[in-house]
Amino acid sequence: MTAEQIKLKLKQLKSQSGSHSPSIGTMLSEIPSLQIKIDACFLSNPYATDLFMEKIKILSSSKKMRDILEFYPPQNYDVAKNVAKIIKIDSDNIFVGNGAIEVIQAAMHNFAGNKIALPIPTFSSYYEFKTNSSDVFYYQLDKRNDYSLNINDYISYIKNNNCDTAILINPNNPTGEYIPKKDLNYFLQSLKDLELIIIDESFIHFAYEDEHLQLSKNESLIYKYPNLVIVKSMSKDFGIAGIRAGYGIMNKDRVKKLVSNGYLWNVSGLCDYFFSAYGEKEFQEKYEYERKRYILDTISFVDDLSKITGLKVYKTKANFVLLEILKSKITSFDLVVELLVEKGIYLRDCSDKIGLEGEFVRIASRSKEENIEIIKAIDEFSKQYLLN
Amino acid sequence: MTAEQIKLKLKQLKSQSGSHSPSIGTMLSEIPSLQIKIDACFLSNPYATDLFMEKIKILSSSKKMRDILEFYPPQNYDVAKNVAKIIKIDSDNIFVGNGAIEVIQAAMHNFAGNKIALPIPTFSSYYEFKTNSSDVFYYQLDKRNDYSLNINDYISYIKNNNCDTAILINPNNPTGEYIPKKDLNYFLQSLKDLELIIIDESFIHFAYEDEHLQLSKNESLIYKYPNLVIVKSMSKDFGIAGIRAGYGIMNKDRVKKLVSNGYLWNVSGLCDYFFSAYGEKEFQEKYEYERKRYILDTISFVDDLSKITGLKVYKTKANFVLLEILKSKITSFDLVVELLVEKGIYLRDCSDKIGLEGEFVRIASRSKEENIEIIKAIDEFSKQYLLN
Repeated sequence: MTAEQIKLKLKQLKSQSGSHSPSIGTMLSEIPSLQIKIDACFLSNPYATDLFMEKIKILSSSKKMRDILEFYPPQNYDVAKNVAKIIKIDSDNIFVGNGAIEVIQAAMHNFAGNKIALPIPTFSSYYEFKTNSSDVFYYQLDKRNDYSLNINDYISYIKNNNCDTAILINPNNPTGEYIPKKDLNYFLQSLKDLELIIIDESFIHFAYEDEHLQLSKNESLIYKYPNLVIVKSMSKDFGIAGIRAGYGIMNKDRVKKLVSNGYLWNVSGLCDYFFSAYGEKEFQEKYEYERKRYILDTISFVDDLSKITGLKVYKTKANFVLLEILKSKITSFDLVVELLVEKGIYLRDCSDKIGLEGEFVRIASRSKEENIEIIKAIDEFSKQYLLN
Repeated sequence: MTAEQIKLKLKQLKSQSGSHSPSIGTMLSEIPSLQIKIDACFLSNPYATDLFMEKIKILSSSKKMRDILEFYPPQNYDVAKNVAKIIKIDSDNIFVGNGAIEVIQAAMHNFAGNKIALPIPTFSSYYEFKTNSSDVFYYQLDKRNDYSLNINDYISYIKNNNCDTAILINPNNPTGEYIPKKDLNYFLQSLKDLELIIIDESFIHFAYEDEHLQLSKNESLIYKYPNLVIVKSMSKDFGIAGIRAGYGIMNKDRVKKLVSNGYLWNVSGLCDYFFSAYGEKEFQEKYEYERKRYILDTISFVDDLSKITGLKVYKTKANFVLLEILKSKITSFDLVVELLVEKGIYLRDCSDKIGLEGEFVRIASRSKEENIEIIKAIDEFSKQYLLN
């Protein structure tokens, strides 16, 4: 297939899949000659993957690998004990999930009320996972304010609509906006009477409030606010999406309800193995180094992107950045196709994200070397398409 | 720790893990001096584990291992395609679960009605996973008939109680009783108007209807009975409980409902890798050999157990056998602790199983060599405790 034929085929696949982008799997099976050199759709810390791979190499050469595959892993609350050691929260308040997505599903299906407030644009699972008995109240973030969240306005919206459930993704996806701890506190304090507040911290390991890049820790808020569920994803922070590991922090009764009603054996052997490593001080110290290294790389990546003309780079404290194509003659999807076919770099087209107005792509920060490649390609693209 | 201290600690752990036995991991971490030589609690085919370990060795030495850990696995319906190849059922009718337990949970939470009929004794998750809005109608299997199921009587019970949901575990756990295909057909035909019928075939790979030990295949019944959900566990058949892999076969609308409402990314990289192997003809052929080998071992194991006096061995077509201690001066739990601490052999105490009257243990068939050890130990025990 020539480059032109591939582009045509990709556009055809897109038109077949409605407002959604075709998945990588579909693309690769329909276009076997397609080469993805850099997957900048994929939101994870590659240095952390390297770190865990060291553990896996040791495991693979030992007898323990067989045990991990053959035997039933420990039950949920046993795995929670390893998490508890690190986050200094009682293990009874920790629900380990088969990925953060299971925590979201479990919370939405078991604890959400009838009226769910959700700021958009955001991660689609929150509206997709609602039950039939509940309605989602979409709180549109204002483009004129760069889609940033005005806490007081969101609180008023929740109260005015008598919502009993509120969701906050922090940092938000795809905007990357981070809500600082003091605002979060104020938000929770103002909404103490709600049945459920989900704070999704899937990307919080990449956020920071000071120049030391200290990890933002909000875990202990669950003791103060019994309606709060904090969602944590390990996929992004630790670069291990294939293992499916996440956890939720919430009041004990809720953990108990989930564990006794269907979520007792949801942890795989490898997920348990990951959380054993997670519970080790030495592993955490090494991880902390890789976390900061990746944040610094991301900061300079975003900085370099900002220098490219014709693009608007949204302020981010996540490991990705939302990019608006300002003076484009082509759509965001065409940009994605162009970069994929010409450079092997795959970005996330955002044309399926509800609540975004305009042409947007989301770019993940990858390794330093890959980020340089991405910058080079987008710069080239901008000269070719955006300014003529 | 002395043997007496270990015995005490074991009793404490048991009371902490509810109606299930404490996992081996938990026991070993709490009692490091405990030696489990043979885990005859553990219901899986050890020869099948050997088979999959060959695949894992190849994986561990290749770059693919990193991909499996780092990247998001395919979505549920893509993994279902590998299952579809082997069971000859449309992939739209297959829901892949994070272990059979997730299929059970998803079916109980999403499709069960208000009145659930359940024969007891059986696997406890079926009553533990019911939602608040439903009641369980316990259909007591008659001890005078060796807890075997009278299909007509069960059907009458379901109809007389206006149950809208019925569960059948085939072979049943812990009795091991197998319901032949023709009775199953009759059961489904008689209960066509129910909202949901779950047939749990977690142990069906160990059952047979003829001397060729042909695998019992009931999958295509879902086309005839839209209310039917068939549950399949890979943990037992393929000896890979640590991976968490199972699937459900059901009508398309139900699969669609689950996948679109919370169960889309529930498959881990390793689970996907297992199902790729599962989809290979060569792997299936090798597996078929190990399946039959294991059944033959199990038949002679049960036969040997039957010769020990003081015990009643229940008829089984599963990979385990229910054993009643007839003339015991000690309880089933004491027997389990005794064999564990003195011989390193771990059996499943059934004192927590509702619907069983008397002192029962369940013993899994393990490898031929291990089965010989188990027989020797129980024979010794019987001479020591049961006949004096």
